[in-house]
This record gives sequence, structure tokens and C-alpha cells, in this order.
Amino acid sequence: MQMAKVIGTVVASQKEEALEGLRFLILKPVDANTMKGCGAPIVAADAVGAGVGELVLFCSGSAARQTKLTQAKPVDAVCMAIIDQVHVE
Amino acid sequence: MQMAKVIGTVVASQKEEALEGLRFLILKPVDANTMKGCGAPIVAADAVGAGVGELVLFCSGSAARQTKLTQAKPVDAVCMAIIDQVHVE
Amino acid sequence: MQMAKVIGTVVASQKEEALEGLRFLILKPVDANTMKGCGAPIVAADAVGAGVGELVLFCSGSAARQTKLTQAKPVDAVCMAIIDQVHVE
Amino acid sequence: MQMAKVIGTVVASQKEEALEGLRFLILKPVDANTMKGCGAPIVAADAVGAGVGELVLFCSGSAARQTKLTQAKPVDAVCMAIIDQVHVE
Amino acid sequence: MQMAKVIGTVVASQKEEALEGLRFLILKPVDANTMKGCGAPIVAADAVGAGVGELVLFCSGSAARQTKLTQAKPVDAVCMAIIDQVHVE
Repeated sequence: MQMAKVIGTVVASQKEEALEGLRFLILKPVDANTMKGCGAPIVAADAVGAGVGELVLFCSGSAARQTKLTQAKPVDAVCMAIIDQVHVE
Repeated sequence: MQMAKVIGTVVASQKEEALEGLRFLILKPVDANTMKGCGAPIVAADAVGAGVGELVLFCSGSAARQTKLTQAKPVDAVCMAIIDQVHVE
Repeated sequence: MQMAKVIGTVVASQKEEALEGLRFLILKPVDANTMKGCGAPIVAADAVGAGVGELVLFCSGSAARQTKLTQAKPVDAVCMAIIDQVHVE
Repeated sequence: MQMAKVIGTVVASQKEEALEGLRFLILKPVDANTMKGCGAPIVAADAVGAGVGELVLFCSGSAARQTKLTQAKPVDAVCMAIIDQVHVE
Repeated sequence: MQMAKVIGTVVASQKEEALEGLRFLILKPVDANTMKGCGAPIVAADAVGAGVGELVLFCSGSAARQTKLTQAKPVDAVCMAIIDQVHVE
């Protein structure tokens, strides 16, 4: 998984039918050590009701289809947790 | 998922039989934050009738086989939505 | 797989239900040859009770759902071994 | 998928039994926009009878097991089409 | 797949039960064109009895679970062939 900050949303009306009702977030990956942005933004389905500005966890690949909202759908990234605390030693 | 602009197409007549009838798009990934191109082009199957010049969403990996057109086929990227709006804050 | 050092933990209370009870570690990948850190930290589920400071092995992708604790859960990285010895010639 | 040029072959006699009979190609990825080589070569199973010098499409990941020749085999890349034409606008 | 040279081994006694009996190799990826090392080392399960110094093929992702020794185990890379010959034109 990677940490990321929600920085926006994407709207697409013409799409594969199975995607109907999913919300797409733009995520800026965050380095879990320095808490600075790192790497290009990605687009992820939202499985937890995350809002812009929140720090979240997302997973990629087939894991992205393991939430109730994304099962068997063509998504390769899902935001599946909102982060409360980060401890780095 | 990643945002991308459709910049071309690829035609291949000698291919695995299951690919018959699929359309292959050349996609230039676009940074969802700056809206500038980023990274090398990739080739994706078309699941939504996207045309050259359009801004689309594509997904990679096993997710690319989760559309009606690509099920059980040897494709690792599919264009599954045409983007209407991008909001970045 | 990659070697990594456990450098911290992440706590998330609002999350996909299936993640309940999993512990999330922040891992700093380590170059198996030079034993120096390499690449950005990742977040992995813990399948072996690893603690901060320990040298571990983690795997990514669908392999991350092949432990007893992570089956069918939306995780794309799991720490599944604690390293005792590294031999490089 | 990615475009690539076939630049060589690999022979391995001591291998997992399921790989018996597969041909392994060395592919140099080609940027679909500039048509120049990009990135390190990869080794792919051959599903279409591609020869050295030909321009091909390959796919990676679990998609590589979706051809008749590669089903359920330990291969993570397969050459599944020979390219006739590339249109970039 | 990628070519690599076996440069070492990793021993881990505290691990996911399913990993019992597997041997873990440290592989240094090799550029199939120049035959020089490229990229960071990775750790792979051994499915062919490869020894330190040998040139091998490894595959990554779900393909790594398609050998007899690695089925359904949490491994994301497996060494599944020992290379005899490389032809590059």
C-alpha cells in the first residue's frame, strides 16, 4: 500500500457499465517517511468516502478489487482506509 | 488508474486468436495534477469507443480483463472511461 | 520479494471492514546487495509479528493475499518473514 | 501492452517442467510515439511465431497466461501480436 | 521475465508457514542486451535448484505461483529456469 493525499476528483460519464456509481479520486502519493509528495498522481476508486485533503491508504493491482464496492470491476487502485496516525521511528 | 490522451492506434493482423476484433489505442499518460504528458506511451485495448485526441482513464494489470470486451484475453491495459471533468484543488 | 527494514506503523480507524484487525507497517526497502535503503517506503500488512527495527521480507501484488491473515483482503503488500541471515558472494 | 522489437532469444534446458516447448524472446521495448528503444530488454514467451527484427506487442503480468500456449505456466510476459501498422497523430 | 545472476541467499526462520522448505535467492537483474547488471537486487523463491553465480530467468507477480514448489504461497518472484545460451542480434 501507499499513503496519499486526496487532491481532486475525476468525472467520466461514458464508461464501462460496471463502473456506474463509483467515485474516482485523484491521489498524490506521499512518502511515508518524509510526509512529502512523491511520484505522479494516480486515480483510485473510493471505497471509504474520502474527501479532498484527507490522508489515505490506497492499494493497487488485483487487491483493488477486494472491496465491496469494487469487486469484479475494471479498477486497478482503490482508496480503502483514511489514516489517523503515522508513527515513524 | 491513470489519465491519458489517445494519440494513435496500432494494427496487428497476426495475433493470438482471442484478440480478434479488439481495437488497440496508443495512450500518452497525463499527470492528473499538471495535465502534462508524463512517462512513455502504452498500448491499451479500447472498451469505450475512444477516439484520437480524447482524454481517457485506463487501468492496468488483471483489472484490464474486467470489461465485457476484454474478459479472459491477453491484454494488460484497457481504456474503460472517457473523462468529462477533472477537479484538482 | 524485497528486503526491508520496519521503520514505523500506520493507524486507520475508518477503513474497509475486511481490514479490521490487520496491522500496517511502514517498510523502507533495503538493497539486498549493499544493505542500504533504496526507494520510497511502502505500507505492508504484517503477517509475522514484525517489530520496528527488524529486517524483513515482503511480497507485493496478489501474493500479498496468500497468507492466513490477508486472504481476500484489499492489501497489495505483506510482510511474511523476518530475516535471520543474508549471504552475498 | 507495449511495443517492442525482437532482438534475440534465450535457451534454457534446466527449467520448470511446464515451460517445456515454449520459445523465449528477448524484446527491446519501443516508444510508440518516437519509435525509439526505451527501457531495459525483457524476456517474453512467444505465442505468435515472432522472429528477430520484427515489431511486436507484448503484455505483462497475469495477462501473459491468457494465450493458448502459456495457460497456467510461470511466465510474466508474452508476445501475442506482430504489428503491421502504427498510426500516431 | 528477466535475466539475473544469483548473488546470494536469504535465511528466515520466523515466517508464514506456507514458506517452509522454500529456498530464497538474491538475484541481480542482468540487461539481456549488454549482459551488465541493471536495477536493484530482488529476492526470489528457487524452483530449479539454482546456485550462486548462475545465470537464470525469473518471473514476477502471480506467475511466481505457477511452479510446483510455489503454488498458493506468498511469493512474488520465482527463479524457474537456468540459462544455457543467449543470442542477441
